[in-house]
Amino acid sequence: MQRAAALVRRGCGPRTPGSWGRSQSSVAAEASAVLKVRPERSRRERILTLESMNPQVKAVEYAVRGPIVLKAGEIELELQRGIKKPFTEVIRANIGDAQAMGQQPITFLRQVMALCTYPNLLDSPSFPEDAKKRARRILQACGGNSLGSYSASQGVNCIREDVAAYITRRDGGVPADPDNIYLTTGASDGISTILKILVSGGGKSRTGVMIPIPQYPLYSAVISELDAIQVNYYLDEENCWSLNVNELRRAVQEAKDHCDPKVLCIINPGNPTGQVQSRKCIEDVIHFAWEEKLFLLADEVYQDNVYSPDCRFHSFKKVLYEMGPEYSSNVELASFHSTSKGYMGECGYRGGYMEVVNLHPEIKGQLVKLLSVRLCPPVSGQAAMDIVVNPPVPGEESFEQFSREKESVLGNLAKKAKLTEDLFNQVPGIHCNPLQGAMYAFPRIFLPAKAVEAAQAHQMAPDMFYCMKLLEETGICVVPGSGFGQREGTYHFRMTILPPVEKLKTVLQKVKDFHINFLEKYA
Amino acid sequence: MQRAAALVRRGCGPRTPGSWGRSQSSVAAEASAVLKVRPERSRRERILTLESMNPQVKAVEYAVRGPIVLKAGEIELELQRGIKKPFTEVIRANIGDAQAMGQQPITFLRQVMALCTYPNLLDSPSFPEDAKKRARRILQACGGNSLGSYSASQGVNCIREDVAAYITRRDGGVPADPDNIYLTTGASDGISTILKILVSGGGKSRTGVMIPIPQYPLYSAVISELDAIQVNYYLDEENCWSLNVNELRRAVQEAKDHCDPKVLCIINPGNPTGQVQSRKCIEDVIHFAWEEKLFLLADEVYQDNVYSPDCRFHSFKKVLYEMGPEYSSNVELASFHSTSKGYMGECGYRGGYMEVVNLHPEIKGQLVKLLSVRLCPPVSGQAAMDIVVNPPVPGEESFEQFSREKESVLGNLAKKAKLTEDLFNQVPGIHCNPLQGAMYAFPRIFLPAKAVEAAQAHQMAPDMFYCMKLLEETGICVVPGSGFGQREGTYHFRMTILPPVEKLKTVLQKVKDFHINFLEKYA
Repeated sequence: MQRAAALVRRGCGPRTPGSWGRSQSSVAAEASAVLKVRPERSRRERILTLESMNPQVKAVEYAVRGPIVLKAGEIELELQRGIKKPFTEVIRANIGDAQAMGQQPITFLRQVMALCTYPNLLDSPSFPEDAKKRARRILQACGGNSLGSYSASQGVNCIREDVAAYITRRDGGVPADPDNIYLTTGASDGISTILKILVSGGGKSRTGVMIPIPQYPLYSAVISELDAIQVNYYLDEENCWSLNVNELRRAVQEAKDHCDPKVLCIINPGNPTGQVQSRKCIEDVIHFAWEEKLFLLADEVYQDNVYSPDCRFHSFKKVLYEMGPEYSSNVELASFHSTSKGYMGECGYRGGYMEVVNLHPEIKGQLVKLLSVRLCPPVSGQAAMDIVVNPPVPGEESFEQFSREKESVLGNLAKKAKLTEDLFNQVPGIHCNPLQGAMYAFPRIFLPAKAVEAAQAHQMAPDMFYCMKLLEETGICVVPGSGFGQREGTYHFRMTILPPVEKLKTVLQKVKDFHINFLEKYA
Repeated sequence: MQRAAALVRRGCGPRTPGSWGRSQSSVAAEASAVLKVRPERSRRERILTLESMNPQVKAVEYAVRGPIVLKAGEIELELQRGIKKPFTEVIRANIGDAQAMGQQPITFLRQVMALCTYPNLLDSPSFPEDAKKRARRILQACGGNSLGSYSASQGVNCIREDVAAYITRRDGGVPADPDNIYLTTGASDGISTILKILVSGGGKSRTGVMIPIPQYPLYSAVISELDAIQVNYYLDEENCWSLNVNELRRAVQEAKDHCDPKVLCIINPGNPTGQVQSRKCIEDVIHFAWEEKLFLLADEVYQDNVYSPDCRFHSFKKVLYEMGPEYSSNVELASFHSTSKGYMGECGYRGGYMEVVNLHPEIKGQLVKLLSVRLCPPVSGQAAMDIVVNPPVPGEESFEQFSREKESVLGNLAKKAKLTEDLFNQVPGIHCNPLQGAMYAFPRIFLPAKAVEAAQAHQMAPDMFYCMKLLEETGICVVPGSGFGQREGTYHFRMTILPPVEKLKTVLQKVKDFHINFLEKYA
């Protein structure tokens, strides 16, 4: 305080001192009292305001954690404060967060992680040998044999090797090179990093990024941050949300008038739409990218989440190689995977990887340079990624328990996918495509004209209005289709199928009852 | 392959098929053979090249993991391959990575982390009760009681509360509000996020960001990525790298000709320079920011790393409040901390926090929205941050061991800081300011004219030339001063003081011998 007073004496202080040496609270009280009588003591204009901030950041929207989720948080606080509602808990079906919905972690993964975290446990007889073997291997590849050291910017070497071996197995022998693997902070980080490198140009030569509609809103958010041009192509709802190459052609032709379309993003299995692309469709898309000279981004984080017996996951990488050298040595591709989805659902660890194909060697250097600025992805997330790609194999001690746990999660998800589709399709005014994969339903809801008017009166998108009412009346939090994009005049919402089976049945019944009431109310 | 052939029949395939149905390697061999005779089968121009990439990313430089570190990696590989060198190992003194240099993790932190990772251990008698108590508290605040769930975008609530309580204790009662705490993926993430929001405008109203020279190159890298304007202010090497407000005034005045200076970044304790700012200096800086309407960024990640008995760490937040309401209710400040430095050195977990002061409520909303796009910082890193701010206290079971470990790390660092300063100052042609804090020496090296000429002949900065020679001759990897910025015509390097004492002595002796030889060679 004396120093502050000294500062004032030097003429550097505020023009109206008088509160030095008193407690913070009395100072604050005086400050607010003074505010009324002496305008020169009032709060100054802030430097950082909505007007002065980065307009590209201001334009970002991210519905999955948008206004409806903020409202859900408020309602939870009200419930905690004892305010009566027609329900006792908020069910957060807005985000693909399996463990938050009660899914148990895969034991083996957490055992390896615990061993890596606290290596004293390597002497404990309560941990299986196969888990110890993996933990030792990971630690030996870490600086100082510790998860607490930075890794190489591209990720721990032996983990990148394990990822490459996994991809090679997955793709029936199509080779993967550890040098083309970049470990990331979840898939989101990989996607935004490669987009950051890709975007360039101004005016009509600004980079256009083609994304599906409906899309996962990370894409639109990053495009906005980077001031790139979003080029929409529409998935075909009448045909199970399939991707039609004619629609890609339409979109790219129209886009060429005002930007330079350079990137094509695909989400397979689809988020929020849940379709699984056929091999033929993937071939068509790759050929289109080859023809139009587009850099392909394949978001394949749901590669383990395929439920429909008629569908199989085909990686873009594998199909690309099978199409022959004209494609496999020319088409530039980045594909993404994550620890957050699949059967392990380890969202909190923020693990992921990106595989690049045909990336120019100089660009690889640029990529490593850019990644090195943030030093490295979380090493614990890298270790989690290792277990995802390198799980117990037959003959190993943990194999039986691991398989049981994995099958249980995936079997339940398949059951819930079917249950959700069936129940939604029993409700008048709801139509739901088959949930072939991923972990969401994205049903179409047919809203009466009066509901649309009521929404407009509240200055809300009609499906936002619907979802807000659903939240307020039932405690169920889902995300309106407008947050993902949809054809004009159609309305949807995205709901996860992650609650446990019995709970999910209750949720679906509540949505059904709400919907029927809603239709009656706005008939 | 059949499908690919079918694709060709539909007229979608390459014009010269002929390699279908053979193995990948034979396909590749043929492709390269064909390359020579049939130009139409040659590799197409890549879409993503140095010419077409984002020019702002291309302009990014990050010396801490730059060319010299790539060279160090190459040398390590050569050593592994048995190639003889005048040394047997590379010593990576380029980066502040304590555990990679052999520092042991703080036991208590890792115990809590292991308990959170694998909660079965909560029943184990081998873990202390105070560690279990903290683990239970963290898990209860996580979705599904698991580190595997996403947290709120701003971070786990109870961890933000612990951070706020820590800041309040640290700052002698100046209150901190959990609502102003944002958990981050290391400090780098917080710094780049807030800069991303701050940067706006074009031409002469483009945002100017004032940074110290020498600086930690994260700043220049992010400024380049965001296409903002870097405004240099020079630290005063003659006065122990102190910050002189007259120099700030000079820099801001000159900058106003070509940009809108809006942000002032301070690193205290300094990186790479190791100075600890006096309370008076911090007051002066805050007053200057108030006067010039600058948003303050205080990088305080080395707040626990103060060695000089004459110095104390003062937080910008505390000094701001003690200067009275005109400052404390007007100056906008963001300050940063990390799990990576201090005495715990948990770099790999990528934990950190940002505290904001006087941030406009609407901007807080924008910040949460922007963070939500990446979902959340790694929850394991958040848990590590919790232990950093909420360590064992007297009376708790682990307190004695924790204190012993902490004092050992900090005591050793203080010893090594003194040792390094003393030894460098014995070498003719090296001058080293006192290492008051942080974990680096940044000695000035006086290079003979002939060495400067030799460097120019190699198209290298003179200090890069010096550091490359040092690496090649001794295996010691340090970062040239040109990667941090320095006054024209002066040369430096940054070296960490993290190797264990005996090893550090050897390193210093080797640098000394190298330097004397170097001076002789280029005399």
